[in-house]
Amino acid sequence: MADAEVPNAPAAEGEAPAVNKAAQRAATKKAKAAARAAKAEAPTQADPDDPLASRYGDSELIQSRSITGRVWTDVGSLGGDSVGKSVLVRARVHAVRGTGKNCFLVLRQGWATVQAVVFADGVAASKPMVKYAQRLPKESLVDVEGTVVAPKEAVVSCSQSDVEIQVNGVHCVSRAAELPFQVTDASRSEEEVRKAAEAGEQFATVLQDNRLNHRYLDLRTPANQGIFRLQSAVCQLFREILLAKGFCEIHTPKLIGGASEGGAAVFRLQYMGQPACLAQSPQLYKQMAICSDLGRVFEIGPVFRAETSNTHRHLCEFTGLDFEMAIHEHYSEVLDVVEDLFMNMFEGLRARFSRELAAVASQFPFEPFEAKPVRLLFSEGIKMLQAAGHDVDPLGDLSTETEKALGALVKEEYATDFYILHRYPAAVRPFYTMPAADDPNYSNSFDVFMRGEEIISGAQRVHDAALLVERARACEVPVETIQAYVDSFKLGAPPHGGVGVGLERVVMLYCGLNNIRKTSMFPRDPKRLSP
Amino acid sequence: MADAEVPNAPAAEGEAPAVNKAAQRAATKKAKAAARAAKAEAPTQADPDDPLASRYGDSELIQSRSITGRVWTDVGSLGGDSVGKSVLVRARVHAVRGTGKNCFLVLRQGWATVQAVVFADGVAASKPMVKYAQRLPKESLVDVEGTVVAPKEAVVSCSQSDVEIQVNGVHCVSRAAELPFQVTDASRSEEEVRKAAEAGEQFATVLQDNRLNHRYLDLRTPANQGIFRLQSAVCQLFREILLAKGFCEIHTPKLIGGASEGGAAVFRLQYMGQPACLAQSPQLYKQMAICSDLGRVFEIGPVFRAETSNTHRHLCEFTGLDFEMAIHEHYSEVLDVVEDLFMNMFEGLRARFSRELAAVASQFPFEPFEAKPVRLLFSEGIKMLQAAGHDVDPLGDLSTETEKALGALVKEEYATDFYILHRYPAAVRPFYTMPAADDPNYSNSFDVFMRGEEIISGAQRVHDAALLVERARACEVPVETIQAYVDSFKLGAPPHGGVGVGLERVVMLYCGLNNIRKTSMFPRDPKRLSP
Repeated sequence: MADAEVPNAPAAEGEAPAVNKAAQRAATKKAKAAARAAKAEAPTQADPDDPLASRYGDSELIQSRSITGRVWTDVGSLGGDSVGKSVLVRARVHAVRGTGKNCFLVLRQGWATVQAVVFADGVAASKPMVKYAQRLPKESLVDVEGTVVAPKEAVVSCSQSDVEIQVNGVHCVSRAAELPFQVTDASRSEEEVRKAAEAGEQFATVLQDNRLNHRYLDLRTPANQGIFRLQSAVCQLFREILLAKGFCEIHTPKLIGGASEGGAAVFRLQYMGQPACLAQSPQLYKQMAICSDLGRVFEIGPVFRAETSNTHRHLCEFTGLDFEMAIHEHYSEVLDVVEDLFMNMFEGLRARFSRELAAVASQFPFEPFEAKPVRLLFSEGIKMLQAAGHDVDPLGDLSTETEKALGALVKEEYATDFYILHRYPAAVRPFYTMPAADDPNYSNSFDVFMRGEEIISGAQRVHDAALLVERARACEVPVETIQAYVDSFKLGAPPHGGVGVGLERVVMLYCGLNNIRKTSMFPRDPKRLSP
Repeated sequence: MADAEVPNAPAAEGEAPAVNKAAQRAATKKAKAAARAAKAEAPTQADPDDPLASRYGDSELIQSRSITGRVWTDVGSLGGDSVGKSVLVRARVHAVRGTGKNCFLVLRQGWATVQAVVFADGVAASKPMVKYAQRLPKESLVDVEGTVVAPKEAVVSCSQSDVEIQVNGVHCVSRAAELPFQVTDASRSEEEVRKAAEAGEQFATVLQDNRLNHRYLDLRTPANQGIFRLQSAVCQLFREILLAKGFCEIHTPKLIGGASEGGAAVFRLQYMGQPACLAQSPQLYKQMAICSDLGRVFEIGPVFRAETSNTHRHLCEFTGLDFEMAIHEHYSEVLDVVEDLFMNMFEGLRARFSRELAAVASQFPFEPFEAKPVRLLFSEGIKMLQAAGHDVDPLGDLSTETEKALGALVKEEYATDFYILHRYPAAVRPFYTMPAADDPNYSNSFDVFMRGEEIISGAQRVHDAALLVERARACEVPVETIQAYVDSFKLGAPPHGGVGVGLERVVMLYCGLNNIRKTSMFPRDPKRLSP
């Protein structure tokens, strides 16, 4: 409080009493504000006269000063068998309360929380130390030392409910400034908010834009910790399963000449003075890898679509899980791999990542995902839709709504949230799709659905250069922009097929989430390029 | 031969004999060319009068006509215990020779080769069938049926030397057009070419540009099959080891607002009417993931550098292996992970991918990679260089040449091709590098070297927002372009550090290759954007 205060002197008689009273009121207000500010202003250093001064205060900037050999314990590892141990924990201040001689901290690390108690008994802690702890801003990072004890009652508000820490040291490592929203507010389920409202309590809700603007805070909620660990798990399982099937991982260029696969939704740029664009998929390159005799390849990488669609399921940049494989005679060989891959992936998620799934469900409850390998012809799907009264074009594409309707019909009949619809009309598939041998209206292609929404497009590809040129022309793709790709099929090309999967969609639909922005760490849509 | 030929009639007496002679010569030449063409023109279909007509000829386009249940055998699986079996193999025609009643095919699949013999005995094959096989263009894809037999002598020219196939069926699945170069020419080692030259034989050599222009052909050489399977292996091991250490895989946006980490070498583009650029690394985002409490994260993804350097080790797009981790007190915690990661990776390559390494070495022989965990201070490195007579700036960066010289000195003293040089001068590191606590001339940073070339840059990062702004200003990075990144450190930021590894460099240097274009599937450099 560096501001000089006007002394509240008695007014001279007869001198402008009204103004004086106003000044008095202003001074009082100022003094109150100063008091509030003093109270709010948190101490950052220990009281130098305190005999326990070394036990608390803000740490020096951690700057690789020395290697002390100290060992930090993970919050999530604290349990019954930790009781009696001295521990050092680095965690966030998730909650803080207490007055006078007590301070209760909830310490959070990932999705694990534990209670820590600072009590001014003059031995473990002093009164200024308790005050220091009480004034720690939420989300600050602290090093807490103490003894693990069994609380009288389970600490139901914490994940590590059968222990608490009796604190004898607390140092702030990184102090948090004012928060744009509270992590607890960002962590509540709709159900909790609704029930509280019914009971007359109003919780702050955090809107999606606010969350995404401060994504580094939003990602700290247990559900988000779960979502992004599941995203990692899906990639891990995808690769484990494909590597075991003899696939080879590849990395293909995202900067390409020409117009990618054609179409308008392309980001264009200048590459050393040449026109270039960002790959809309690794399609052309993974096919060239097949012509290069790698046999079975996969790639996990970014995919760019300059689409202006503002929907719950489109992004301008997302992560593609792609694979491509030589086939001997039929695209069913690709379907075999797809089914085996996804059945094993779902089983892996269930068996190995149940904790992550539970973290997501704690805020966004969802029906368990049911999966069986079901294959239906596109024409069968059309019949099911027509029988249910939907007006659909048997040689057109399905709309998002009819896809959902078909998903519901399939779920009803086959009790699965996962199925393959194959032999799509040729007119709705890209030029590189192999036409059906027996009917040019159809193609050797398929989509895969989760909870009635498309997650995969795939097909047998055209591996004959002459037919490819014919198909490109028919689809108005300028052949000169894809000449190298076309040429790659002239030197002996293995028949092949493959798929492209959207990672964010898989996680979104597996967890029954309602928006793809929830499963993209830093989403890119037509309105968002930051952070 | 649709061209009508001028009959070679005797010239009328007295009529321009010179011209007539010339016409005769022309006609003879034409006839000879026609004969050559007829010989060269390969039959694509069986002779309809041949009782064995069903045994050969080009297949109909493979178009998912039916699921026959036929089983194809891998060439690489053929060995002594296959003898006597009937097999069906799909492979490339790697070599073809024979006249009259014999045809010897070398069939290639990946890096496995086997000899197949077609003999016109009237039972297994007919004369027209042998002729069909003799005229198969190299690199065509064929379905070969036959019986596995033990040859009288080992077929030394093939990888499956203890067997050959007695062919009773051959159908071409995809016919190769004229090749821009021969795979055998592209597969020879420099040593082979030199020795042949000494013996008076001249082999065709295939220049790098020619290879890269037809990369889908070039990649079929055994060495390239090995290189790209090793690249897959490096990624697999990188992830396996980090996942076991509790790292989480992330995917961060490549399209970003502002100017990435600053600097000129940025690809710029328009994003829905806003200026944007391609990420020069996942640096800012992986750090935000740490501020988001993911603890330990890694990413494998494309990295874009609009650098005009035409060197053996720079690309405009490469694959970055990045990780970032919270640390407790010292960047040595990051070095511990780096050493453990690479020692385990090298051991994994040696133990699990020896066949791939042998394939590379068959064309590009290299000294086995020796690796020990050695850490040297930058200042120690300078002293070693100075002691060896190099004129180096103790607070400047090392040039490529001094790096190589230091690598040689380290190899001599420590017998390792791998080492870490740490505590670099602050002036040569990016703004987000944590300065050394005891001397502002130095920083908590490091590089990692393989065979004397840098493969990794890493450091403890600045996790304090105020210091970060100060460092950005000092390094002339406009703070407004990185505001969200700076803000992410204001809400409690864990001390952290990490590294960025160039995948193509790791494979190149492990195998002692001389050009990074050899380890990028479809390289992008200042002159190349295609295929």
